[in-house]
Amino acid sequence: MAKLKVLQFGLGPIGVRSARLAAGKESMELVGAVDIDPAKVGKDVGELDGGEPVGVKVSDDAAKILAETRPDVALHTTSSKFDAVVPQLELLAGAGCSVVSSTEEMLFPALKHAELAEKVDALAREKRVVLLGTGVNPGFVMDTFALIMSAVCYDVEKVHVDRRVDAGTRRLPLQKKVGAGISVEEFGARKARKAIGHVGLPESMALVAHGLGWPVDTMEEGLEPKVAPRDIKTEFLHVKEGQVAGIHNTGRVVSGGRERVTLDLQMYVGCPEVYDLVKLDSTPPIEAKVVTGVAGDLATAAMLVNLAARAVEVAGVNPGLRLMTEMTLPRLVG
Amino acid sequence: MAKLKVLQFGLGPIGVRSARLAAGKESMELVGAVDIDPAKVGKDVGELDGGEPVGVKVSDDAAKILAETRPDVALHTTSSKFDAVVPQLELLAGAGCSVVSSTEEMLFPALKHAELAEKVDALAREKRVVLLGTGVNPGFVMDTFALIMSAVCYDVEKVHVDRRVDAGTRRLPLQKKVGAGISVEEFGARKARKAIGHVGLPESMALVAHGLGWPVDTMEEGLEPKVAPRDIKTEFLHVKEGQVAGIHNTGRVVSGGRERVTLDLQMYVGCPEVYDLVKLDSTPPIEAKVVTGVAGDLATAAMLVNLAARAVEVAGVNPGLRLMTEMTLPRLVG
Repeated sequence: MAKLKVLQFGLGPIGVRSARLAAGKESMELVGAVDIDPAKVGKDVGELDGGEPVGVKVSDDAAKILAETRPDVALHTTSSKFDAVVPQLELLAGAGCSVVSSTEEMLFPALKHAELAEKVDALAREKRVVLLGTGVNPGFVMDTFALIMSAVCYDVEKVHVDRRVDAGTRRLPLQKKVGAGISVEEFGARKARKAIGHVGLPESMALVAHGLGWPVDTMEEGLEPKVAPRDIKTEFLHVKEGQVAGIHNTGRVVSGGRERVTLDLQMYVGCPEVYDLVKLDSTPPIEAKVVTGVAGDLATAAMLVNLAARAVEVAGVNPGLRLMTEMTLPRLVG
Repeated sequence: MAKLKVLQFGLGPIGVRSARLAAGKESMELVGAVDIDPAKVGKDVGELDGGEPVGVKVSDDAAKILAETRPDVALHTTSSKFDAVVPQLELLAGAGCSVVSSTEEMLFPALKHAELAEKVDALAREKRVVLLGTGVNPGFVMDTFALIMSAVCYDVEKVHVDRRVDAGTRRLPLQKKVGAGISVEEFGARKARKAIGHVGLPESMALVAHGLGWPVDTMEEGLEPKVAPRDIKTEFLHVKEGQVAGIHNTGRVVSGGRERVTLDLQMYVGCPEVYDLVKLDSTPPIEAKVVTGVAGDLATAAMLVNLAARAVEVAGVNPGLRLMTEMTLPRLVG
């Protein structure tokens, strides 16, 4: 089998990881890396994480790299917003390159950008590529994992998912992202201007409802601070009692007049138990718990690389802007 | 969307359940039911489980029913052995009907019947149908579930799966199948003539190794009795201390000189904790436990019906004798 030619597009913390992971896979060859940050351009990808060089230098000229290397698939890690990445998707798809993206809104692009999604889908079909949004959250623990557990059920009345993450063991940017150490008042102010919280819960809800064929009457999202009940020290921060320790993000889908999907994401410093739990009110009843949790950054890079093989496979038979439900079975690739 | 036209082929305990389930699905229409048992022929499918009639009578003339009803997909529940069902698959595929089968060996037909599998695959491609083996075990808990959990991993050194089933809460035939109430000596005699135990562990091992791209050096299967440590009464049986309570079935795959897949199935009366556990020695480490367990008979019927939609979907783009790894995301269908 010929190796899959992989382009890394975007070299933030996730992108550097997915690039290195792809470079180390036997079934893949990292053929290029693109980022617009002048501090990264010209450097070997391996310099960005302080590890061994991988033999691929970062370029800011995506069109040139695409023409020179003709990749099969790009690992795309640039932004959370679908509309913001459409020009990048057009460039990649236009060059015949499939895309697996960590763009959270791209898990279910039609939710917030239906028209744009149609347009991008048409291009992907024409160019015979797959464009896919995936990741861990959204992308796996609060959506795909719940869906696959429903396969053993006669029927499902309701899907509930809990995710618990100890932000204290994660990178400083994540601790800041969840508001660790700010006041409850400041949390409210940031929430009002949408400058805090997790992106992707509505997309997870939409994917679950779509995957189960449940029309959505209403979809609600809630965001509240988790307040530190005592002083908590992390490697980077000291969160005082009464300050914000992190976020509590909830989602709820009503379909046919009944509550059918509820998601509960708690990500805060000092979270005592880390896990992912899918609970189906179903016949037979199903409760599946990832007792280790699923570590966000590592696992997101892994999902991108592992789904790259699936996206290329599906591109051969069913190209387009596709969903996780349309991929062949997600799994580790060698 | 037109309803999927479903044929039930085989009306044992699982088949009656899958037929009724399909009949009740909004997206499906049960168009026929086939069995050779004279005691069942002519009866409404609903009479076989003592429930409401479903409006479909059992026929022993499969060719006639196929010609009259032209089903999209058959739920096939007749035998554990692939070679035994090939004439049935040929009949169904020849009529342009995809097949989702509970035939345990069909989860990975090439393991024991490589040539036959090639021949059947060629027919399925020609007729543009998908033929798929699935179920709960094999089919989900000890293979597909482990594979999908690997999607969030950088790499996996080893896959381990435990399945614990309390045979005491199951049908009498299952209690007998696992040898509950026989002597250890009798267990040995039945084992020697392959008249006891679970069918499918090698196929689960093969699917996991194949799905992860691990070449199999050696594959071993073990079968030992679980001996009752005390008297145990079930609804049907009284198992005395020292008698057989059930089976302990193990599997082990060596790949590249290393042990990489181990499966451990314990199915016996008095099993104190029922669960399914996937444990990956991986980066990041993953341990996922279905704390409810996955109830065998109900869930197997559910898998057949739910995968029928996936098989027909895949038949449109990638027909053939296919594996679970080649299906789009398994999930509940409405």
